[in-house]
Amino acid sequence: MAAPGISPSGSAPSRRVVYLGPAGTFTETAVGRAPGTAGAERVPVASVDAALAAVRDGEADLAVVPIENSVEGGVTSTLDALGAGRPLSIRAEVLVPVAFVLAVRPGTTMRDILRVGSHPHALAQCRGWVAQNLPQAVTVPALSTAAAAQVLAGEGEAPYDAALCAEPAAVAAGLDVLARDVADNAGAVTRFVVVSRPAAPPAPTGSDKTTVVAALAEDRSGALLELLEQFATRGINLTRIESRPVGTALGRYTFSIDCEGHVADPRVGEALMGLHRVCPQVRYLGSYPRADGLAPVPPPGTSDDDFTAARSWLSQLLECGEVSS
Amino acid sequence: MAAPGISPSGSAPSRRVVYLGPAGTFTETAVGRAPGTAGAERVPVASVDAALAAVRDGEADLAVVPIENSVEGGVTSTLDALGAGRPLSIRAEVLVPVAFVLAVRPGTTMRDILRVGSHPHALAQCRGWVAQNLPQAVTVPALSTAAAAQVLAGEGEAPYDAALCAEPAAVAAGLDVLARDVADNAGAVTRFVVVSRPAAPPAPTGSDKTTVVAALAEDRSGALLELLEQFATRGINLTRIESRPVGTALGRYTFSIDCEGHVADPRVGEALMGLHRVCPQVRYLGSYPRADGLAPVPPPGTSDDDFTAARSWLSQLLECGEVSS
Amino acid sequence: MAAPGISPSGSAPSRRVVYLGPAGTFTETAVGRAPGTAGAERVPVASVDAALAAVRDGEADLAVVPIENSVEGGVTSTLDALGAGRPLSIRAEVLVPVAFVLAVRPGTTMRDILRVGSHPHALAQCRGWVAQNLPQAVTVPALSTAAAAQVLAGEGEAPYDAALCAEPAAVAAGLDVLARDVADNAGAVTRFVVVSRPAAPPAPTGSDKTTVVAALAEDRSGALLELLEQFATRGINLTRIESRPVGTALGRYTFSIDCEGHVADPRVGEALMGLHRVCPQVRYLGSYPRADGLAPVPPPGTSDDDFTAARSWLSQLLECGEVSS
Amino acid sequence: MAAPGISPSGSAPSRRVVYLGPAGTFTETAVGRAPGTAGAERVPVASVDAALAAVRDGEADLAVVPIENSVEGGVTSTLDALGAGRPLSIRAEVLVPVAFVLAVRPGTTMRDILRVGSHPHALAQCRGWVAQNLPQAVTVPALSTAAAAQVLAGEGEAPYDAALCAEPAAVAAGLDVLARDVADNAGAVTRFVVVSRPAAPPAPTGSDKTTVVAALAEDRSGALLELLEQFATRGINLTRIESRPVGTALGRYTFSIDCEGHVADPRVGEALMGLHRVCPQVRYLGSYPRADGLAPVPPPGTSDDDFTAARSWLSQLLECGEVSS
Repeated sequence: MAAPGISPSGSAPSRRVVYLGPAGTFTETAVGRAPGTAGAERVPVASVDAALAAVRDGEADLAVVPIENSVEGGVTSTLDALGAGRPLSIRAEVLVPVAFVLAVRPGTTMRDILRVGSHPHALAQCRGWVAQNLPQAVTVPALSTAAAAQVLAGEGEAPYDAALCAEPAAVAAGLDVLARDVADNAGAVTRFVVVSRPAAPPAPTGSDKTTVVAALAEDRSGALLELLEQFATRGINLTRIESRPVGTALGRYTFSIDCEGHVADPRVGEALMGLHRVCPQVRYLGSYPRADGLAPVPPPGTSDDDFTAARSWLSQLLECGEVSS
Repeated sequence: MAAPGISPSGSAPSRRVVYLGPAGTFTETAVGRAPGTAGAERVPVASVDAALAAVRDGEADLAVVPIENSVEGGVTSTLDALGAGRPLSIRAEVLVPVAFVLAVRPGTTMRDILRVGSHPHALAQCRGWVAQNLPQAVTVPALSTAAAAQVLAGEGEAPYDAALCAEPAAVAAGLDVLARDVADNAGAVTRFVVVSRPAAPPAPTGSDKTTVVAALAEDRSGALLELLEQFATRGINLTRIESRPVGTALGRYTFSIDCEGHVADPRVGEALMGLHRVCPQVRYLGSYPRADGLAPVPPPGTSDDDFTAARSWLSQLLECGEVSS
Repeated sequence: MAAPGISPSGSAPSRRVVYLGPAGTFTETAVGRAPGTAGAERVPVASVDAALAAVRDGEADLAVVPIENSVEGGVTSTLDALGAGRPLSIRAEVLVPVAFVLAVRPGTTMRDILRVGSHPHALAQCRGWVAQNLPQAVTVPALSTAAAAQVLAGEGEAPYDAALCAEPAAVAAGLDVLARDVADNAGAVTRFVVVSRPAAPPAPTGSDKTTVVAALAEDRSGALLELLEQFATRGINLTRIESRPVGTALGRYTFSIDCEGHVADPRVGEALMGLHRVCPQVRYLGSYPRADGLAPVPPPGTSDDDFTAARSWLSQLLECGEVSS
Repeated sequence: MAAPGISPSGSAPSRRVVYLGPAGTFTETAVGRAPGTAGAERVPVASVDAALAAVRDGEADLAVVPIENSVEGGVTSTLDALGAGRPLSIRAEVLVPVAFVLAVRPGTTMRDILRVGSHPHALAQCRGWVAQNLPQAVTVPALSTAAAAQVLAGEGEAPYDAALCAEPAAVAAGLDVLARDVADNAGAVTRFVVVSRPAAPPAPTGSDKTTVVAALAEDRSGALLELLEQFATRGINLTRIESRPVGTALGRYTFSIDCEGHVADPRVGEALMGLHRVCPQVRYLGSYPRADGLAPVPPPGTSDDDFTAARSWLSQLLECGEVSS
């Protein structure tokens, strides 16, 4: 089965990509940087759920949604939407630096700003900057950073005097930009994933990640430790681990995990089989190239060669009880 | 140092309790059930940050904020706000069942409802109910469940025909209730914590929880495993574990953890000392009675008596090299 | 490659079996009970080294040597001799109850016995019995239990008045038996192994053991823990583990290990491959039926079916990114 | 309670030291190097059991017995004798290089030697040397290296033409020495321990070892892993671990363990308390200075300072719920 959306040769580009809108957010920036989306129709939708439903239903080929450290609040809903419902495959990841602009109606100056509107996560990420540069201002929550810009640009009296949003949203709304690179934390980025209907993973590149969702066995103490040991005994580092409540009761969780490596790497394959054995449910969400291009060296005894040599050794034992010289 | 807000004898009730508003949300319900709040002035504030700041600044004695599985989106902000800034102490936990009402302007019938507004988390928790009972309706996000009710009750044309909210909010806004117990998941609850300025923990009850936030050592593989082993080797189950990004870069986390037991229990004390030794940062947030009243039996070798016997044995070894008979 | 010594069909019995002599010890009893030895020539040799050398050199087809809890001191030398030199295969194990007789020259009575001779290990195992039944006697070390009988039966003045030995040795030496079942510990047994030149292991029976010798990585702390986790994460119990010094310095060890299961069982195969990856040296010594016939149930997630299902699942992920229904 | 045998000031030397004889073995060399034995009466006894019994009964103040890698076969019997019976305390360890002489009756030359006698362990350690230098010779077992010398020096026809023994034994027996430093492994040493009746351990020196014997819980899988984790989670390396059968059945073991550090070191004390909690039986055998003088640096988080800081932190939490600044 071929991946519907990403063609290594570029000969069959995706026709339609949906993303968490509105237009002008960081997610649209991510779409522009995602592999396999060149020339595709871009369709903003209202929620992560809607984006993934469009792919599941065949109405879109790819979805681009935030998964980690997002300023748009997408993380939790993305994790939950990928972890349940019809299967999907993560095909790629994209990192976008987080930097807002301070957008105002033409004529507004810094001194005029008494109320700053944005998504609560964006306000949180700029709290220090606002306290220092706009000490007189209070913050006002909005539904998204782009919505803050649109509301500010709308007719009548706005609920705030300035909006913190991505620059394209400010421009699209006809607002002026009073400040750029507004963020308390200069290195902050948001991570997006590109999602298709299920497909065989792209070939290993030597710098890959794998994403899975695993439930813990209900009635066994130390179940999380057992899950983690499946990775640790194969020398695999985790790059993200997040608990998600199962929903039926407090205290029951699934774990959403990104680990180093590709499902076709022996050490990752063996760890995933280990999860399959010890966890009541495991959902594989894909193996894909790392956006940072890092290629960590596996610890001693866990390289592909080590696994190949171990399997060859075992075969000889089964056949003749010793290692032939 | 005495706890400022909770008096076991009831002789010095808290004068002021702040909570995540607006009035009419589930948080206000939690305030009503929280120990130590009888007779206190109740003050809704706009955010978890504001609630905790009020306690830190001495403007309030207690704050009641959602911490887990909230329908108001409070979890993440609560975890982050408790984990940083001036220290606070969790004094108690309160569980409140999650059940919404479908609120409308007087005269609206089920058939009239084409748009349902509420906080995105509430919409997510009622998705199945809406699909079944209001198949013709779309959902519209609002800033909170109570805000949805207020907007719907406001003058002029509302952006939706019905609101999903807590019943007190519907009543306060003068709306009619068309349906009660609206939720896809009948057993869903939200967990709230009661927070004071730092104070010695209440005495152990035999059915307690302890909350800590621990950072992982940056450059050591298996650091999460090492952290968890501090609990596992003392036979302590975790009832909640959530990763929170450190914020400076992807892939760096602190872990917010609830475990069984009280800091004064020897096995918990030793585990916390272990965290203090192996983690670059540990913040103790409190030990407090479990709302569910469960008292798990420690595994063999980890009871208080086992720890007491072990310490007595060690003392004898140090003194005379053997166990006196 | 066929096992040279054991034929399941019985059509090609071993021609020659060597064993740790002299004749009349418990090892000869073990030879009589070992599978594949019926009709074979039995040749006692002076040491475990000599027995294994005879097999390695093709002068014998099988060797029977004590490996565990022996009264003849054979354990250590067997472990060391199997762990080094040309490879060998353990084909079977045999358990023999340990029970001595008190042998004397004709005419000697209990009251006459002032000195009891035997191998030091045998004397140790009967210390309590001697103290109770022969309170007037001292013990005198001999080179083996059978040698004690031979020396006592020899001409001239013997260095002791009674010998503790196996009954056949007493009979062969022409001694009288004053007491039987002499042993402080009624349940004591010695375990013997039947060893051939390297050969494919016998087919799994569902009640098997596997023996390996593994060296620890020199310069990594926690290396033994890492070794044991290779078994623990696959739910495999160890039935024996013994450290053997490497010999070049104190503090460096190899570990001789018996575990449940057969190399052809997936969980055992994966654990052995894990050892091969993390240990600088692993020697596989064989998989063979358990003498006690026990068939422990693997813990959840580690049965053959669990491993087969996990591998099938992984294959589907690699092929199409999801589990086909 | 003061240690009966070792006085730091040297003012009260031991009156009587027993050791595994006969005189002229490596054990007597060890006595000469052991602290606290200067000026004491030295009494050889026939067995490790006898040596320890003399101390237990008050007939001697100290016993010096081999514990590891011995050429005299003392290891197993020492481990068993220390692990059972009335408690004893290890006060010190002594390392003695293993090097034999080839002793002959006056007039014998290398060419005359057709039979070499010694303790089987000594023969094993010199196998390569004998094969190279005395290719015509066979080996003959004796009860001890010193006994081999005595038998060779005795009247009448000896059962061998040369003995491998310690030089003092050869000299005492009036034999000639044909070769010195006979050993296949130039770095081999034997480790001896100095044992007293139970006493408070000597003060920590910063370079210490601790010895314990721990039984595994009968019916819990992974019990050995659990035992080892008590050391690993405190960053303590083991310098020796040996399994000893319990004796009642195959497959049941106690473990004799030497670890880094002193019982008064917080990390060692906590690990020992952990053993006391999870193991059905633990016997503490002593903490004493390392003969090699090495002082390994504890891993991060396990130094004495780390433990002290953690306990101070915990005390503050219990008292006031936060860390006072």
